[in-house]
Amino acid sequence: MESRTDAGVAYGEVADTPVRALHLRAPYLLFLGEETSPLKAKTAFGLRDWAPERCLAQLRMPGCSVDLGLSDMDPRSAAQAGATSLLIGVTPPGGRIQPAWSDVLRQAVDAGLDIVSGLHTALESVPGLAAAARAAGVALVDVRRPPDDLPRATGRRRSGRRVLAVGTDCALGKKYTALALARAMRAAGVNADFRATGQTGVMIAGRGIAIDAVIADFIAGAAECIAPAAAPDHWDVIEGQGSLFHPAYAGVTLGLVHGAQADALVLCHDPARARLVSWSDYPVRALRDAVGPYLEAARLTNPGARIAAVSLNTSALPEAEALQAIEDAARALGVPAFDPMRTPAGPVLDAILA
Amino acid sequence: MESRTDAGVAYGEVADTPVRALHLRAPYLLFLGEETSPLKAKTAFGLRDWAPERCLAQLRMPGCSVDLGLSDMDPRSAAQAGATSLLIGVTPPGGRIQPAWSDVLRQAVDAGLDIVSGLHTALESVPGLAAAARAAGVALVDVRRPPDDLPRATGRRRSGRRVLAVGTDCALGKKYTALALARAMRAAGVNADFRATGQTGVMIAGRGIAIDAVIADFIAGAAECIAPAAAPDHWDVIEGQGSLFHPAYAGVTLGLVHGAQADALVLCHDPARARLVSWSDYPVRALRDAVGPYLEAARLTNPGARIAAVSLNTSALPEAEALQAIEDAARALGVPAFDPMRTPAGPVLDAILA
Repeated sequence: MESRTDAGVAYGEVADTPVRALHLRAPYLLFLGEETSPLKAKTAFGLRDWAPERCLAQLRMPGCSVDLGLSDMDPRSAAQAGATSLLIGVTPPGGRIQPAWSDVLRQAVDAGLDIVSGLHTALESVPGLAAAARAAGVALVDVRRPPDDLPRATGRRRSGRRVLAVGTDCALGKKYTALALARAMRAAGVNADFRATGQTGVMIAGRGIAIDAVIADFIAGAAECIAPAAAPDHWDVIEGQGSLFHPAYAGVTLGLVHGAQADALVLCHDPARARLVSWSDYPVRALRDAVGPYLEAARLTNPGARIAAVSLNTSALPEAEALQAIEDAARALGVPAFDPMRTPAGPVLDAILA
Repeated sequence: MESRTDAGVAYGEVADTPVRALHLRAPYLLFLGEETSPLKAKTAFGLRDWAPERCLAQLRMPGCSVDLGLSDMDPRSAAQAGATSLLIGVTPPGGRIQPAWSDVLRQAVDAGLDIVSGLHTALESVPGLAAAARAAGVALVDVRRPPDDLPRATGRRRSGRRVLAVGTDCALGKKYTALALARAMRAAGVNADFRATGQTGVMIAGRGIAIDAVIADFIAGAAECIAPAAAPDHWDVIEGQGSLFHPAYAGVTLGLVHGAQADALVLCHDPARARLVSWSDYPVRALRDAVGPYLEAARLTNPGARIAAVSLNTSALPEAEALQAIEDAARALGVPAFDPMRTPAGPVLDAILA
C-alpha cells in the first residue's frame, strides 16, 4: 500500500478509516550540516541510539565537528550504499533550513534520496528543491506536517493492548521511557511497537504523527490512527506529549489520552523539578496528585485503565538520592518505579503486562 | 488598527502578543441562496436573533422560500444602503459553496462587499472570485480559518473577569447560554462582551476564533487571545466548545478552559439526553459528576474558579417537567439554575457576578 510518488505519504487502514500516515523510507543518511554542538544534533544522536538499523551513514559539511561514529558519505555514495532518505539531524538557530545547505539537499534529491525534515521551514520553500524532487521522483517529507483527512475520534474500543507514557510536565523523559519499554518488551519476546507522537519519535519509528501539529478537532482521532487496532496480544507503547497540568499543552495531552485508550499508563516525573519548564509560574504537581486526573481522563475511553508504573527522570540527582527517589515513588503509588537511564525495566515491564 | 486590504484580518494587541484576529465588517447582507429549509438557514436566523444590529437585508435567489423578515436586496442596493459584507447564512449539503451562487458572489465583490463564509469550501477556490476581490479591494473571509501566528498560552493571569459556558455534551446550548448571559449582563448595565469560539458565534460577535480549527499546540493560546486582558470590572462571557467528557473533542474543551481562566463556569446540560449526540456508546455524565473534573481543570489557571450556575436545555420536556428539572438541578449543585429559553436569567446573573 506504500506509494513513492505521493509525497512520502502512504495510505493505511486504521481506526475504521483509510488515513494518510507518514511512512519514512530508511535507511537514512544523517545530515549534520556545519554543526559544532552535539546539543543541536540531538535528533541525529537519538536516531543513532534508538534506531541504529535505520542509520546508514552521516554527512558532515566543512566545519562540522559533531561525529556520530558512522561512515561519512556524500549523497551519491550513500544512495549507492542503499540509503533511501537524507534526514536532517540538526536544529540550527530558529529551527530553519540554512541557505548553505541548498547544494547538498539538491545533490541528495538528484541522487534519488527522499529528504526528511522536522524543521519549521517547509522543504518546498527551498528554491528549486520541489521541482528537482518531482523530476527525480523522490519525496520531500516535513515530519511536522500532519496527514490530510484525519478522522474525528470514534471512541470505539480497538483490539490489542496499549501503554501510554504520561507526565507531570513536558520534556522529562516520556519519549525515552516509551522507547526503553518497547525495546524491553521486544527483548522479552512481546509483540510490541513503539508508536510515535512527536517528530523525533516519528523519525525513529519511521511512521507516526506529530500530534501537537494536528487541527484541534482531530487530536484524539490522530491518536486512534497512531495506535490502530491490532492483534489481541500486541502491545503499542505510545510516546506521550505534554501534561494534563500544563497551561498551554494540556489539550493535546487529553486528546492523546482519550484516543490512545491505554490499558496501562506509565507516569513520568522529575523529582528534582519544582516548576514547569518555561512556565515557571506553575509548580510541578506531586506524583500522587497526578494519579487521579490521569485515571479520570483515561477511563473515559477505557474503563479498565490503570497506572501501572512510574518512570522517574533522576538525571539531576546523585546515584544514592536517585535510587531513594525511585523507592519513594514506588511506595507512594504502590506500583513499580524505575529510571530507564539507571535501573532495569524488568519489574515495570511485569506490571504493565500483568 | 484595522486593515481592509489584509484578507479581512486585523491586528489586535492581545495576550501580550500582537495577534491576527478576525474582524468581520458589518452590517451584513444575509445570503440565503435557494434554500427551502429553515433548519439549513440556522446561521442566518441566529444572526437575525442575536445580532440584529449587524443585519441589514437578505438576498434570496429564485426558489428560496426561507424568509428572515428583512428587506430583500441585491448586492448593489445593499451596498448603497450601507452593507459592507455579504454573509453566507445557509449550509447546503456537504457544507459546500454551490456553483449556482457564483454570479451573486461575484456581484457582491464587484459592489464592494466582503464575503464572509463558514462553509468548508475556501472562498478562494471559487473560480475568479479571489482575483475579483483583489481588484475590488474587498476581503474573502473564511471564518473557520484560524489566524496565523497564534501564540502558545502563557498561563499568566489577566485582568478583567470571565465566565465560560461548559457542558456535559456538544450541541446542548452553550452558545445560546453565553449569548443570553451577555445580553442580560448588558441589560443590567454590566460592562460585558460575548466572546466567540465557534463560527456562528464569530459571525454574531464580528470577531473571535473558531477554536476547534486551530493547531493543537495553540488551543489555550487562542483562548487567551479570544478573551484578552480587560478592565477590572469588565466581564467576558465566553462561548464554550465540546465537553471534557467527549471522546473526540475533550482536548479542545480543556485547552479552552485553561486559556479562558474563567472566574465562573456555567454548566450546561440536557436532562433528557441519555447518550452523547452521534457518540452513542457514551452515556451523558450526570450533572453532579461533571462538577469535579471541570473545577479541577479550571483551577489550574485560575485557583478561584467556581461553578456559578447551571443552564439546562429543557427543549425536550413539557413545561412542568422542565421547571422541575431546573429546580432539581439547582438543588443538586447548590447553585441557581435556568433554561435561557424558558426562565429568567436574574438569579443566575447574580450568582455569576457575586
